[in-house]
Amino acid sequence: MTAAADRPGMAGLRTARVETLADGVFAIAMTLLVLDIRVPLPHDPAHLPERLLDLGPNLFSYALSFVVLGVYWVGHHNQYRFIQRADRAFLWINILFLLSIAFIPFSAGLLAEYPAERLAVAVYGGNLVVVGLVLYLHWWYATSHRLADDVPPEAARSAARRILLAPFLYVVAVGLSLWTTRASLTLYVLVPLLYILPARIDRHLVGRGSGPGPAKPDGKR
Amino acid sequence: MTAAADRPGMAGLRTARVETLADGVFAIAMTLLVLDIRVPLPHDPAHLPERLLDLGPNLFSYALSFVVLGVYWVGHHNQYRFIQRADRAFLWINILFLLSIAFIPFSAGLLAEYPAERLAVAVYGGNLVVVGLVLYLHWWYATSHRLADDVPPEAARSAARRILLAPFLYVVAVGLSLWTTRASLTLYVLVPLLYILPARIDRHLVGRGSGPGPAKPDGKR
Amino acid sequence: MTAAADRPGMAGLRTARVETLADGVFAIAMTLLVLDIRVPLPHDPAHLPERLLDLGPNLFSYALSFVVLGVYWVGHHNQYRFIQRADRAFLWINILFLLSIAFIPFSAGLLAEYPAERLAVAVYGGNLVVVGLVLYLHWWYATSHRLADDVPPEAARSAARRILLAPFLYVVAVGLSLWTTRASLTLYVLVPLLYILPARIDRHLVGRGSGPGPAKPDGKR
Amino acid sequence: MTAAADRPGMAGLRTARVETLADGVFAIAMTLLVLDIRVPLPHDPAHLPERLLDLGPNLFSYALSFVVLGVYWVGHHNQYRFIQRADRAFLWINILFLLSIAFIPFSAGLLAEYPAERLAVAVYGGNLVVVGLVLYLHWWYATSHRLADDVPPEAARSAARRILLAPFLYVVAVGLSLWTTRASLTLYVLVPLLYILPARIDRHLVGRGSGPGPAKPDGKR
Repeated sequence: MTAAADRPGMAGLRTARVETLADGVFAIAMTLLVLDIRVPLPHDPAHLPERLLDLGPNLFSYALSFVVLGVYWVGHHNQYRFIQRADRAFLWINILFLLSIAFIPFSAGLLAEYPAERLAVAVYGGNLVVVGLVLYLHWWYATSHRLADDVPPEAARSAARRILLAPFLYVVAVGLSLWTTRASLTLYVLVPLLYILPARIDRHLVGRGSGPGPAKPDGKR
Repeated sequence: MTAAADRPGMAGLRTARVETLADGVFAIAMTLLVLDIRVPLPHDPAHLPERLLDLGPNLFSYALSFVVLGVYWVGHHNQYRFIQRADRAFLWINILFLLSIAFIPFSAGLLAEYPAERLAVAVYGGNLVVVGLVLYLHWWYATSHRLADDVPPEAARSAARRILLAPFLYVVAVGLSLWTTRASLTLYVLVPLLYILPARIDRHLVGRGSGPGPAKPDGKR
Repeated sequence: MTAAADRPGMAGLRTARVETLADGVFAIAMTLLVLDIRVPLPHDPAHLPERLLDLGPNLFSYALSFVVLGVYWVGHHNQYRFIQRADRAFLWINILFLLSIAFIPFSAGLLAEYPAERLAVAVYGGNLVVVGLVLYLHWWYATSHRLADDVPPEAARSAARRILLAPFLYVVAVGLSLWTTRASLTLYVLVPLLYILPARIDRHLVGRGSGPGPAKPDGKR
Repeated sequence: MTAAADRPGMAGLRTARVETLADGVFAIAMTLLVLDIRVPLPHDPAHLPERLLDLGPNLFSYALSFVVLGVYWVGHHNQYRFIQRADRAFLWINILFLLSIAFIPFSAGLLAEYPAERLAVAVYGGNLVVVGLVLYLHWWYATSHRLADDVPPEAARSAARRILLAPFLYVVAVGLSLWTTRASLTLYVLVPLLYILPARIDRHLVGRGSGPGPAKPDGKR
């Protein structure tokens, strides 16, 4: 606690609270996605099959966005295995991150309704660019302001590169939408796969349950 | 922690976080179900009684789906009395599980609106088949990748059979919907009862509060 | 743990999980209430004042229902200062309790839209009767199945009477709605006040932070 | 625990529970804000750009309200670094606080739809005045009823002044709306900035992770 608490203007806040708020926002954003898949109304049994087929883009957007939120949930929490402290600025980086995460249900709804529109595809990608950049800022701030413990410089840089890969690819995807939205959508599907597959970063995480500090609430490390 | 952490590409993640996210998604999915029971609008006091009676299928779907979510919430958490570790693949099995859980409010809304339509009944059952199979995958992966401790092989198999029973019966129910949706709905009501009644698995759970590992946060075992 | 775990068919489940799910459902049900207060649409600035005044019943229902949920949240958690164990049946009593709690946003929306209709007033009261009776069942089961520790018989009975008072008064309120819904609404407002004011039960709670068992996660008792 | 528990009619409740409920309500209120940004419907690709531009006030209200909720989330939790106990009255102050927090998605939706209407601007500001006054009551009650430990009188007064600054400025903003809503909106944007910037209060918080009492669940102080 000393590192952060000793500096003036820093509050040495607990990270448990931040993680609880983040878990809540992620769980709600994930579950709200389903509201974009609307039950066919008004009541019309005769055309139910066609109208369910019309929900194809909604299902695609639901599954894609759920997985994207999963990727960022994993990424956010992996950082907290190293991050042991928070200060006021860091809290606000978190709130900015959650602001961009909570926006995803809108972007997902827009993509579900207008899957072939360049603008909708770009808004979706733009949302994910912001999410990725704020997550990078989150990691950069934590490692450069001594909020994280025991991060070897090379591991910090390797993690930073890994975090920046997603917004970079999303910028490419948004650019591609000028030619063909299909290519953008393909890239949107591929990017999460890069993060789901086992990663080099895992090697650094091995052996650190919840960080080197005092035991976490579940008594496991 | 060693078992999982020693293998390359595994991250030895904490399970507490996964359980928090899952609790959030379950709580929200349960509570969102009520949004499918819509207050009769436009304002029409003269016909309020009939219009509330029209909500019968919505009430049925609400209660059934709430109980189904309850069954899977209990099932998911019972597994965590044995599971002590997570790795990257296991995290993603969890996110896939939550994706299928968060879909239930849509399936429930569809069933509420089209309770006599074969297709709506089949979508509801199909959703529950996926939920059940992913929960089976979750248990199979945990027990076969040394994420769980002290599970006697016979108990692991017995639990696996118990988990698979539900998706098997839901497949039967979906098949029955080709003849009569009424039989499918009856089976949908009966399956949760099998899980609510005391089970043989409870014998294995007796005496293990939260597993043999270190004490859980509440200090009870 | 022994008391419950020794009996066959009982699982000795942890209560922490149940409390987390309950907190989630309460928080969501409380926050969803606001969705019943709809922003006046279509856009019509000229009549905004009148249309906001029309929201009076919605505001009344929002505040009343929020406070009612608060009363039951406090009541549910007060019980967990004594309850130290859960078994399968008890889990399902909890899920039934949460099912009736998650229904309140619908009853509240109905009351907001039809505040002068006998039927809407009765549905609202009926919902609260069910909530109260299930909460009584919850306490009765816990104290009579040795899930709670150190509850003096007189204190258990006194708490039971206190819990039953609300559903009794709500039954009276529903009955009054046959004559005048205004009397029912007045009683709906008065009942929570009974629970907000300091109670005799507090004397029993004094000196027991979180029960006599092992320290709770916050390290306080 | 003694201070509160010794007095008659006080329950010595745990604060962990209150914080969990508050975190849930904040996370949900934040995430529900996005529902006010509606995907342009009916489907109309030709006018998508204009219709997305029309969402400007919605985006403004979303970002502003998310940040306002962030400010109050930080403020509420900062108080719990000192507050170690709760009593019945204090629980109800919290529920009143959450009632005014959960109302913000409505006020935000109203502001998004009627950003130039005096009345909508005043409702939004009025909501924040109530939030601020209840947060002040929360702090005053905790410090004057011995629920908080080790708060130097000067620090308590300094925090109280800091808390009261926001509702004071919001009253000014509401007053300004009689002349020009633009000035009110400017002030709405400026007030959160006062709280995001490092504050004198941080000096008092330095060196106290989670308060001087027993270790919190994360084992950190």
